Amino acid sequence: MSVTAAKGFTAAGIAAGIKENGNPDLALVVNTGPRRAAAGVFTSNRVKAAPVLWSEQVLKSGALSAVVLNSGGANACTGPKGFQDTHATAEKVAEVLGVGAGEVAVASTGLIGILLPMDKLLPGVEKAAEALSEHGGEKAAIAIKTTDSVHKTSVVTKNGWTVGGMAKGAGMLAPGLATMLVVLTTDADVDSESLDKALRAATRVTFDRVDSDGCMSTNDTVLLLASGSSEVTPEYAEFAEAVRTVCDDLGQQLIRDAEGASKDIKVEVVGAASEDDAVEVGRSIARNNLLKCAIHGEDPNWGRVLSAIGTTRAAFEPDRLNVAINGVWVCKNGGVGEDRDTVDMRYREVHIVADLAAGTETATIWTNDLTADYVHENSAYSS
Amino acid sequence: MSVTAAKGFTAAGIAAGIKENGNPDLALVVNTGPRRAAAGVFTSNRVKAAPVLWSEQVLKSGALSAVVLNSGGANACTGPKGFQDTHATAEKVAEVLGVGAGEVAVASTGLIGILLPMDKLLPGVEKAAEALSEHGGEKAAIAIKTTDSVHKTSVVTKNGWTVGGMAKGAGMLAPGLATMLVVLTTDADVDSESLDKALRAATRVTFDRVDSDGCMSTNDTVLLLASGSSEVTPEYAEFAEAVRTVCDDLGQQLIRDAEGASKDIKVEVVGAASEDDAVEVGRSIARNNLLKCAIHGEDPNWGRVLSAIGTTRAAFEPDRLNVAINGVWVCKNGGVGEDRDTVDMRYREVHIVADLAAGTETATIWTNDLTADYVHENSAYSS
Repeated sequence: MSVTAAKGFTAAGIAAGIKENGNPDLALVVNTGPRRAAAGVFTSNRVKAAPVLWSEQVLKSGALSAVVLNSGGANACTGPKGFQDTHATAEKVAEVLGVGAGEVAVASTGLIGILLPMDKLLPGVEKAAEALSEHGGEKAAIAIKTTDSVHKTSVVTKNGWTVGGMAKGAGMLAPGLATMLVVLTTDADVDSESLDKALRAATRVTFDRVDSDGCMSTNDTVLLLASGSSEVTPEYAEFAEAVRTVCDDLGQQLIRDAEGASKDIKVEVVGAASEDDAVEVGRSIARNNLLKCAIHGEDPNWGRVLSAIGTTRAAFEPDRLNVAINGVWVCKNGGVGEDRDTVDMRYREVHIVADLAAGTETATIWTNDLTADYVHENSAYSS
Repeated sequence: MSVTAAKGFTAAGIAAGIKENGNPDLALVVNTGPRRAAAGVFTSNRVKAAPVLWSEQVLKSGALSAVVLNSGGANACTGPKGFQDTHATAEKVAEVLGVGAGEVAVASTGLIGILLPMDKLLPGVEKAAEALSEHGGEKAAIAIKTTDSVHKTSVVTKNGWTVGGMAKGAGMLAPGLATMLVVLTTDADVDSESLDKALRAATRVTFDRVDSDGCMSTNDTVLLLASGSSEVTPEYAEFAEAVRTVCDDLGQQLIRDAEGASKDIKVEVVGAASEDDAVEVGRSIARNNLLKCAIHGEDPNWGRVLSAIGTTRAAFEPDRLNVAINGVWVCKNGGVGEDRDTVDMRYREVHIVADLAAGTETATIWTNDLTADYVHENSAYSS
């Protein structure tokens, strides 16, 4: 059900011809109201794609009537013409829906440095508008896929209101592998300030902690739109929790679909002096290519975990560090711990616990292994 | 000729039985004087191996009579017993050479988290001492190999004096892939302060700018020993230049032998506001897995270069960035430049120039591509 699980939304996903293989490549999500509150979070990359620059701008009003998303081209590093194309796309959506262009967010994903085929994209917007439906959420989710092997949706329904969403990508907000695009919708009656607060709180501990390959996209975009059509205004905490749950679910789906991955790795840092320390250490472990290769080879190589911890500024003493892999404390007090031959690495999920023995804060970062398939997928063609 | 190219040094490389396959695994380098000045640079990883902790300590005197190096085990994360083993190794070298243990540096490389087989290592020291020769430099260079496919040596001879050295590893000082161990010797009559200054100046622009896979070792060690036996005291600038030349040559040999690599990538950052900016940008580009895969696939994917630049704090405007790949300016002013199809990627060396258009400072970082062979080599067995 995706973005149309919540009342007050229609969506469509169609093939506009942007992708040369004829696959669906254009999605439209429309908020039919009565409320049109919205919030967004964008890539922290300083090289931002035209649609990110546009959407950051329009989001300042705290209101959105529609989101148009295309795969088949990132419209990044495309100069003034690229920005004009994004603007023209928003204008076209505005025209066919009878709203203002300043209420239309744009998101794009695909190869950097090529202009979008506007002669196909603009007629595609008309086609998508004609296809809008209260049941169009799944088709929209399919149309934003790039290297994704499956489309990703998630829905949480509470007492009278719903939060749902769709995502594409095999990576993360900051950093981001392939571009991550996420659109969340809710029929809860929530103002834009609360949407913004709930969205930032959720992405900080979900998408921000999914780190597939340490690469940050120019296009990452997460939007949350509220229609108010349930006429229910939930408690903030309950609403924020529902947003977090959907983000967490979509984030997990992204990491499980990471390019070429054969293992999903949960890096849990405990005993940290601060949450920042825990995140820094978790990210350092998650980005260590040597460790990611070892996990691929089902080798519980805890020395590479310690080596990664040692590159951080976090508070710890080397001779107090402990590391567990799949429940076996293979490293104790900075040295050899339990027998590494007892670690069972046969399953897809691998759980690494790094105990800094320096406090009580924790953080969990999700990543995946580094495989020959990843190399193949990212070297065999431009993406 | 390696470490015995300079007069006043003997060396040996033997098989002590530390490696199960019977390959050479123990090297000894001895300074026969008359001067015994020395300097060292070590990993910046906070998780330091026992031999690094030991050698940092003995180097404080500015004097070394010998260096003992073993492959087959890193002696890292091995607790108090590991440090005792390093100490016992130095004591054994001191005993057989008739010097003090505080004049003996120790370096180790291999798997983290296992104790060294001291019952093999200590007799190995005796065997190595018996094999010491003024022609032993090459054998020493062979004995410190781990995953290296070739041994690495370099020599610069000036008017009456020489700087020579050996290196192992397929990575870098900070960070470091597989451990990098380097021993340089000179018969120039130079005091330890000048050695230290010249060594730090050289490693900063050579080994520190070789970044194979962004992983930092627990054991990286670079030592420079001076025997004074040429009885020539060169001008500091000339001496520093010779040290830099040898370090540069060895650094190049390391990157060309990087695990699984098929391309050597020179990342040259120009137009930076500061040298720090240039290094930060160069390192970010050099560590971008997506770009490294693209180069492997001979794809001049400049979008991934811009994406990597965008994650840094360096001074730049996105719409002023220029990128050349193998001489073709594929990105101009942050957008599409010359035809990417004219980039010739057939050769092993790939030259990326990133122009930040923000100043006049430059830096060059060397890296290599990311290949299925790298994944295989680092997942198929513990290393």
